[in-house]
Amino acid sequence: MTTQQLIDQIQLKKSFLCVGLDVDLTKIPKHLLETEDPIFEFNKAIIDATHDLAVSYKPNTAFYEAYGIQGWLSLEKTIRYINDNYPNIFTIADAKRGDIGNTSSMYAKAFFEDLNFDSVTVAPYMGKDSVEPFLAFENKHTIMLALTSNEGAFDFQTLNVNGTELYKQVLETSKTWKNSHNLMYVVGATKAEYFTEIRKIVPDSFLLVPGVGAQGGSLSEVCKYGMNTNVGLLINSSRAIIYASNGVDFAEKARAEALLMQQEMQAILS
Amino acid sequence: MTTQQLIDQIQLKKSFLCVGLDVDLTKIPKHLLETEDPIFEFNKAIIDATHDLAVSYKPNTAFYEAYGIQGWLSLEKTIRYINDNYPNIFTIADAKRGDIGNTSSMYAKAFFEDLNFDSVTVAPYMGKDSVEPFLAFENKHTIMLALTSNEGAFDFQTLNVNGTELYKQVLETSKTWKNSHNLMYVVGATKAEYFTEIRKIVPDSFLLVPGVGAQGGSLSEVCKYGMNTNVGLLINSSRAIIYASNGVDFAEKARAEALLMQQEMQAILS
Repeated sequence: MTTQQLIDQIQLKKSFLCVGLDVDLTKIPKHLLETEDPIFEFNKAIIDATHDLAVSYKPNTAFYEAYGIQGWLSLEKTIRYINDNYPNIFTIADAKRGDIGNTSSMYAKAFFEDLNFDSVTVAPYMGKDSVEPFLAFENKHTIMLALTSNEGAFDFQTLNVNGTELYKQVLETSKTWKNSHNLMYVVGATKAEYFTEIRKIVPDSFLLVPGVGAQGGSLSEVCKYGMNTNVGLLINSSRAIIYASNGVDFAEKARAEALLMQQEMQAILS
Repeated sequence: MTTQQLIDQIQLKKSFLCVGLDVDLTKIPKHLLETEDPIFEFNKAIIDATHDLAVSYKPNTAFYEAYGIQGWLSLEKTIRYINDNYPNIFTIADAKRGDIGNTSSMYAKAFFEDLNFDSVTVAPYMGKDSVEPFLAFENKHTIMLALTSNEGAFDFQTLNVNGTELYKQVLETSKTWKNSHNLMYVVGATKAEYFTEIRKIVPDSFLLVPGVGAQGGSLSEVCKYGMNTNVGLLINSSRAIIYASNGVDFAEKARAEALLMQQEMQAILS
């Protein structure tokens, strides 16, 4: 999917919502545990109930790897289900990968070719040659961690390096990499006041924003400081939507939560 | 496996060699491609041929994920084969994971419980709460990136933060985390001169050292500056050993390469 196609979808749906598919078998409705593939059945129901309200889905690979081969099968079925049934959805493999060049190439192959995701999240610590193999894929997007939503973000990301903060240096440096137009960035909603500074460095890039909802970030604050003329934001919500109910009405309740967010987004967009 | 058990194995085998199982189907002997699971058959032959010369094996997850479900099956079979047949081997999942707390817990579960690896590599960028969920596992080891072997290491890892370099700050900060005795660190062999400084910060920790061989690092230099009284080093070699030949003699040639390294290590130890 091209960036323009993503922007078009945002305008069409009046939504920049990304639903995080972080499926924990201890939290999903009990009746699904009797099905052959509970994780996929859960995702399928959530996707069917919310696909017109969201522009993106983001499975976090940890939640699939934790269930071994069965988990990977569920992930594979989920991404195929989205691509087959809702091809205008922007898909994100939240994998936070990154390694030396030839190894990052294998990760890029795994997520862009084998699984056919539109994008993958990566970690910046290993620098240029750990990220460029991902950037080499045309019409695929590499979403690099900049300033994350967790407490540990303050351990290293905000350290002062040469008069600026590390995450700002990460943003600046990444702009010099080959095919950097394929970069997006992760910026946590819990740090809304930082968006002004971030927009000075990457005015045009899309930012994937976790931390609204369960982690406490505010949608209106993020939009106030982080939105650009193309919207430029994908707001992720995982637990607040997918675990809105753990009864048989889970999909319906997830839709209700997604609708609330979409309506808030529509109001902001107009 | 406890750290003491690893040290005992090093003394017993007179080796601190780790063999990287980075299996690329385009590089392995053609005749294996006709088997049902070429990746596992390749690994099994390499492991059988080198297990008395190496104390550790390190599959890099990228090379398995690139082949989808089949790749994960091969990874699962490989780790099970090692655990069943060579229980004294220290196993490393080279996965470079790291995420917010509840997500890192899922990764820890995947590698420590589901796959039963002794250790996993993690990235430091997201800080304390992204690493502590791994450290919570007793007799499991978390190997955090400090100073990597690639060119991109100089993009961020060596930036000056508060009068020191970022990778040194990463080392210092990590020592304050809960269960930090379960930490080991990745330090690239291509930067042997840095080991002196690193040993001032983490004198007792094990260091996993990639970059000897194909990437150009020198074993003797690394040992000169990096060894401690418990050896404290695991020297990884991947391509130089596993791709020593791509003919039917590949395992034999891999053994010959591993033997050269083990003999060099034995000489250094005595």
